[in-house]
Amino acid sequence: MIVIVRENVAPEGLDELCGYLRSQDVEPHVIVGQKQTVVGLIGDTTSIDIHHLESMGQVASVRRVSEPFKKANRQFHPDDTVVEAGGVEFGGGSFGVMAGPCSVESEEQCMIVAEAVKQAGATVFRGGAFKPRTSPYAFQGMGEEGLAILSKVKREFGMPVVSEIMDARDLPLFDDVDILQVGARNMQNFSLLKELGKTDKPILLKRGLAATIEELLMAAEYIMAGGNGRVMLCERGIRSYDTRTRNVFDVSAIPVLRGLTHLPIIADPSHATGRTRLVAPVAYAAVAAGADGLEVEVHHDPAHAASDGAQALLPGQFDEMMRRVSMVRSAVTEPLAVL
Amino acid sequence: MIVIVRENVAPEGLDELCGYLRSQDVEPHVIVGQKQTVVGLIGDTTSIDIHHLESMGQVASVRRVSEPFKKANRQFHPDDTVVEAGGVEFGGGSFGVMAGPCSVESEEQCMIVAEAVKQAGATVFRGGAFKPRTSPYAFQGMGEEGLAILSKVKREFGMPVVSEIMDARDLPLFDDVDILQVGARNMQNFSLLKELGKTDKPILLKRGLAATIEELLMAAEYIMAGGNGRVMLCERGIRSYDTRTRNVFDVSAIPVLRGLTHLPIIADPSHATGRTRLVAPVAYAAVAAGADGLEVEVHHDPAHAASDGAQALLPGQFDEMMRRVSMVRSAVTEPLAVL
Amino acid sequence: MIVIVRENVAPEGLDELCGYLRSQDVEPHVIVGQKQTVVGLIGDTTSIDIHHLESMGQVASVRRVSEPFKKANRQFHPDDTVVEAGGVEFGGGSFGVMAGPCSVESEEQCMIVAEAVKQAGATVFRGGAFKPRTSPYAFQGMGEEGLAILSKVKREFGMPVVSEIMDARDLPLFDDVDILQVGARNMQNFSLLKELGKTDKPILLKRGLAATIEELLMAAEYIMAGGNGRVMLCERGIRSYDTRTRNVFDVSAIPVLRGLTHLPIIADPSHATGRTRLVAPVAYAAVAAGADGLEVEVHHDPAHAASDGAQALLPGQFDEMMRRVSMVRSAVTEPLAVL
Amino acid sequence: MIVIVRENVAPEGLDELCGYLRSQDVEPHVIVGQKQTVVGLIGDTTSIDIHHLESMGQVASVRRVSEPFKKANRQFHPDDTVVEAGGVEFGGGSFGVMAGPCSVESEEQCMIVAEAVKQAGATVFRGGAFKPRTSPYAFQGMGEEGLAILSKVKREFGMPVVSEIMDARDLPLFDDVDILQVGARNMQNFSLLKELGKTDKPILLKRGLAATIEELLMAAEYIMAGGNGRVMLCERGIRSYDTRTRNVFDVSAIPVLRGLTHLPIIADPSHATGRTRLVAPVAYAAVAAGADGLEVEVHHDPAHAASDGAQALLPGQFDEMMRRVSMVRSAVTEPLAVL
Repeated sequence: MIVIVRENVAPEGLDELCGYLRSQDVEPHVIVGQKQTVVGLIGDTTSIDIHHLESMGQVASVRRVSEPFKKANRQFHPDDTVVEAGGVEFGGGSFGVMAGPCSVESEEQCMIVAEAVKQAGATVFRGGAFKPRTSPYAFQGMGEEGLAILSKVKREFGMPVVSEIMDARDLPLFDDVDILQVGARNMQNFSLLKELGKTDKPILLKRGLAATIEELLMAAEYIMAGGNGRVMLCERGIRSYDTRTRNVFDVSAIPVLRGLTHLPIIADPSHATGRTRLVAPVAYAAVAAGADGLEVEVHHDPAHAASDGAQALLPGQFDEMMRRVSMVRSAVTEPLAVL
Repeated sequence: MIVIVRENVAPEGLDELCGYLRSQDVEPHVIVGQKQTVVGLIGDTTSIDIHHLESMGQVASVRRVSEPFKKANRQFHPDDTVVEAGGVEFGGGSFGVMAGPCSVESEEQCMIVAEAVKQAGATVFRGGAFKPRTSPYAFQGMGEEGLAILSKVKREFGMPVVSEIMDARDLPLFDDVDILQVGARNMQNFSLLKELGKTDKPILLKRGLAATIEELLMAAEYIMAGGNGRVMLCERGIRSYDTRTRNVFDVSAIPVLRGLTHLPIIADPSHATGRTRLVAPVAYAAVAAGADGLEVEVHHDPAHAASDGAQALLPGQFDEMMRRVSMVRSAVTEPLAVL
Repeated sequence: MIVIVRENVAPEGLDELCGYLRSQDVEPHVIVGQKQTVVGLIGDTTSIDIHHLESMGQVASVRRVSEPFKKANRQFHPDDTVVEAGGVEFGGGSFGVMAGPCSVESEEQCMIVAEAVKQAGATVFRGGAFKPRTSPYAFQGMGEEGLAILSKVKREFGMPVVSEIMDARDLPLFDDVDILQVGARNMQNFSLLKELGKTDKPILLKRGLAATIEELLMAAEYIMAGGNGRVMLCERGIRSYDTRTRNVFDVSAIPVLRGLTHLPIIADPSHATGRTRLVAPVAYAAVAAGADGLEVEVHHDPAHAASDGAQALLPGQFDEMMRRVSMVRSAVTEPLAVL
Repeated sequence: MIVIVRENVAPEGLDELCGYLRSQDVEPHVIVGQKQTVVGLIGDTTSIDIHHLESMGQVASVRRVSEPFKKANRQFHPDDTVVEAGGVEFGGGSFGVMAGPCSVESEEQCMIVAEAVKQAGATVFRGGAFKPRTSPYAFQGMGEEGLAILSKVKREFGMPVVSEIMDARDLPLFDDVDILQVGARNMQNFSLLKELGKTDKPILLKRGLAATIEELLMAAEYIMAGGNGRVMLCERGIRSYDTRTRNVFDVSAIPVLRGLTHLPIIADPSHATGRTRLVAPVAYAAVAAGADGLEVEVHHDPAHAASDGAQALLPGQFDEMMRRVSMVRSAVTEPLAVL
C-alpha cells in the first residue's frame, strides 16, 4: 500500500502518521521527493481500512498495491480449483454445461427438456424454483413444489441439478439440490453469502448487474472465508448504456479472472444477451476466451415459457450449439503442431 | 403496449397473435402500414410478460407505453405522500435531515454526535449496527449491541432513529428502530423487501449501485404491494466510469422521481461522493433540485471512525451545512414576488 | 413511429396533432384506449424530428418503430457488403487480418514487423502516423514521414496499408493509404465523416468510447450518405466502470450488428483490452462470435514502442494467435455433419 | 509515480529497471518488502509513458501519484482564472449566463429570443450555426448565414455571442463570435483543439459524452499547451445506463473540478436533461454546487424549433429560473452570520 502525503505536512505530522501505521502492524518506508512525499507500507495490509487512512489530515490519497482477496487469489493458490458436484467437475481442464428452463413450470416440461439437454451433452440440469423478478406482479416461481420436480429429474436422468436460492431461510429446502445459485441481484447480499459459507454445497455465484471483477471476487471471498471453498464464478453480462442487448457480456472478464483466481469460471450467454439469436455466438465467444463451463436456458416451447422465453434455445438449437461449442473448445485448447 | 409485427407475417399469423392477446384480456388494434404492421393494446397490460410476447414468432419487438409500477405511481395517487416516523415528517412540503455516524461504535460516540446534530437541526439520528462491507475481513458492525445504543440515544434526545437492516431474520431486533433502511446492495433483495412489506415501519429504500429509476420504483412497489405504503426513496449516487468520486450523484433523478411518484425523495450526499469536501456542495444541489430530506454522515473524530471516516462531516461542518441548506431550500420554495 | 398522447387532451388538440403529422407526409392512426390514446404513424418517418414532436403540448412521449439508418440497414440491402482494399476483401465470407505496430516509429521497425506479420498470414499492414493521444505532451506520431514509410512497406511486401486520419485537411497525404481509419474519438467528428463520404477509399470506422450501436451505424450513415459505401465497422471496446481492462470488449455487438447491417464487422482486441495477455483470448472470442476480420498490434520490441507497447504482441505470439484464429473460424463456419 | 515490481525479479532485473528510469531523468527509490517490491519515482514524471513502463518484463503495474495536467492544474496556479469575453466575465466570483436557441433559425427568431433573455439577465447570447446531429438527414444548421445573424444580434443588443465550431477550417468565419464552443462529440478532436490553442478566443469546452474529469482537463490542456489559456469547462451530463433523462448531470464534477483546476466551470442543464421540465431544477443544483455560469436553451416557440425544442425554456420560464438562480447563488456564497 502506498500513502501519498499532502503537501506542507510538517515532520511531526509525518511522524504521527508513521506511528499510526506501526500501530497497525505495518512498517512505513518514507520517500521524500521534490514535490511529493510518499510512504510505502511493507507487511500484510489487508486489515487496513483505506477510507480510514484517507481521512487522516496528513494523507492526500492511498493506492493499494496488493489484492484485497486472499482465499480466492491465485497468487496464494496457483493451481486451478476443481469443483465437483454430483459427479460432474468444473475447472482444471474439466468443462461442463448446465442447461434447462429459466423457471420450473411443470414436471412434464422439465422431463421433456431434461431428456433433450442430456442427449445433447449437458452435464447439469438447471431450473429456477424461486425467481427474482423485477415486478412483484410477475410469476415468482413454483417454490418448494418446483424443487420437488427437480429432485424427480435428478433421479430420472441421473443428472445433478442447479437452482437459485434467494433467502437463507430456504436452505433446508435445497438439501437435494447439487449446486446453489446466487443470482446477480444477491451478489452482495452478505447475509446470504455468509450462510452459504457455512454449507459444503457448490455455489454458482453470478456477477452483479454492475459489479466490478474485484467485487465479484470479494463476494466469493465472503463464502470462502466461512469455510466453503467450492465456489464457481459466473459472468452473465453487465449493465451498459446500450439498449440493443439486455446487458453487455464482458468476455474479457474470463481471461482477467483466470489470472486473478483459481476458481472455475462459468458463462451465462442467455441472461447476458436476452435474445435467442445471440445466445450461441456469445456462448462460442465465452468458450473461445477460456470459460470452464456454460449455463444456458433451453425450453421446448419458449412462446409459452413462464419467464424469459425470449432468450431460451429450442432443443434443436441447443444441440447444434453444443456441437460447435465442442469444436471451439478444441480450437483453443488442443496443442498446436510444432512447425 | 405496442407490438411491432415482423415483416411477412401471414394474415393467419396475425390472427393467432390477436387471439393470444385477447386471451390475456387486452384488446388488440391492428394498424397495417406500407412497411410495418403494429398492434396497439388497449386495457390493463401490467400482467403481460413482455419477454414472453417478444419470443413469439410473429413479433419483432414490443414497446411499453404505460408504467409498470402502480402503487408508487403519481398518476394514480396525485398527492404527495407524507411519511411520518417518530413524530417527524418527510414529503408533502416537510423536510427533514437524518444525521449521525456511519457505524455505531460506542455509546459515548453516539451521544456526542447526537447532541451535536440535534443542536444543528437534524430531525432523525442515523447509525449503522449491521454494516454491509465489501470485504468479509472488515468491521461488520456492532449488531444487536449497536441497536441498544441507538435506543438509548432515542430516549436521551427524543429523536427517532434510522438504521440499516440486512436480513429479514433480524426484524425482531429492530422493534425500537423508527425507520428501517434498505441499503443499495439489497435494493433487489426481494425476500427482504417482501418481509418489510408486511410491517408497518417507515422504510428508507436506497437506490442500487446501478439501478435504473424504474427499478428503484419497482423495488418500492414490492414493499407497497405487501401492504406497507410508508416508503421513502433515497438517491445515493450511481456507478459510473469515472474514478474521481465514489459514485455519480444523479441529481436529476430528484425531479424525475417527483414527476413519476408521490413518495418522499431523500438524498444521501455522503455515500454519493465518499469525500468530506464534496458532501456540502452535493447536499445543496440535492436540496436545490427539490429533495424532501437528507441523510448525512457526521462524526466527531472521523480519523478514528470504524467505517467511512473519509466522508464524514465534523459537527462544525455539519452545522454550517445545515444553515446553508435552509437558505437554499428557501431559495427554491418561497413564492416569487409578483413583478 | 408511435406517439403517446397526454391524458386529458381535448379532441381539438388531437386534431391539431394529426394535422401537423399529415403536414409532415405521414398518416396518423389514432387508437383511443381507456387510459391512454396513442397515434400510430404510417409512412416514411425518417425525416420527423422526435425531439420536436415530444415538445408538442399534446404529446407525452414518442417511440420509434423503424431504424433511423437507411444505407447501412440490412433490411434494405440483405446481402453482405464486401469491402475490397488493395486486392484484399472483408465481409461476405472473406476474413482478413490487419496487423502492425500502433505507431510508425522507423523504417527499420516497420520492415521487421511487416515481414513477420505477412509470414503469419496478415493481409493488411497497420501503422499509425498521426496519433490521437490523451496528453498533448505525449508522442503525436511521425506524420507525413510516417506515411512515406508505410508506402515503402506497401511496395516492399505487396500488402495494402491502413492508417488513421484525424483531420480532413490531411486527406491529400493519404493518397497511397489503402484504408483510412477513423479513431474512436473521432467517430462523431461529423465534418471529417462528411469529407470521407466524398472519397472512394475504404473506411475503417471505430466505435466511439461510449457510442451505442445505433450511433456507430449513424456515423457510418454519414459516410454512406455522401456516396462512399465502402465502410467497415470496428468494435474496439467500450467504456465501463471496471478498471481491470482498459475497456469492455462488447462481443455481442458483433452478432447484433450482423443482424442490423450488411457492412463488414472488424474487431480490435488490442485497444479493447490494453494488455498483451488478453489480446489472443479476446481475438478468439471475436472470431467465434462471427467477426469478418481483426486489427491487431504487433511489435518486435514492445518495451521500446513509442505508444501502447503494453498491448502489442510479439511476432511469435501473433503467429500462434493466427493459427488458433483459423481453427476457431473453422469451428464456427464449417458445415456440421448431418447426424 | 510508483512502479510495482513483479515477483521473483532477480537483482539484475531490478538494476536494469532502475537504469532505464534514470535514463528518463527520474530517480528511483527501491522499497523491498516481504511479498512485494516497489520503486518510487522522484522528479518530473509527466514525460514517462505509463503503458511503456507497464510493458517491461520486470513491472507488474504502475500507479500515478501526481496529475498529468499542468497548465490547467490548480496546484501550479492557485488563483481562479477569470475568462473575459466581450466585456463579460466568468470565474473568480463572476457569474454569467449564456442563453438563446439551440439553433439559429432566422433573424426574427434570434431577435425575439435575445431581447427576452437579455431582459431576464443573461449576459451572453447563444445560438448554433453549425449543428452536430446524430443523423446526416437532420437539419445541419444555417452555417455562415447563421453566424451573420449572430453578428446582428450582437450589435443590436450589445451582448457577446457564443457558437459552436466543428471544423478548424471554419475558423475565419468565427471572427465576430466572442466565445467558441467545442461540443461534447469533439472534446477529443485533437486537431481542432490544437488550432484553437493558436487563437486568443475564449473557448467553452464541453465534456465528452462519457469523458472522465481527467480527460476533460487533458482536452483543456491541449488548448492551453498551444498558448490559449482562456478556457471554460462545461459539464453537460454524461452517458449512463438509465433512459429517463438524456444524460446524467454529474453535479459533483463541479466541486471536484473546483479542487483540481483554476478554470471557470459552466453547467449546461438543457443538454444534460433533454427535457424542459428538468432544466430549472438542474440549473439550481448546478449553481448550488458552485458553478460559475450556465448555458441554457431558450426559444419563444419550442414546438417549432429546428432542433432540441423538447429541452428549451419559454422566455417566461427562463425569467423565473433566473430569479431563483440568483437566490440560490446568494444562499451558497453570501457570508454566514457569526453566531
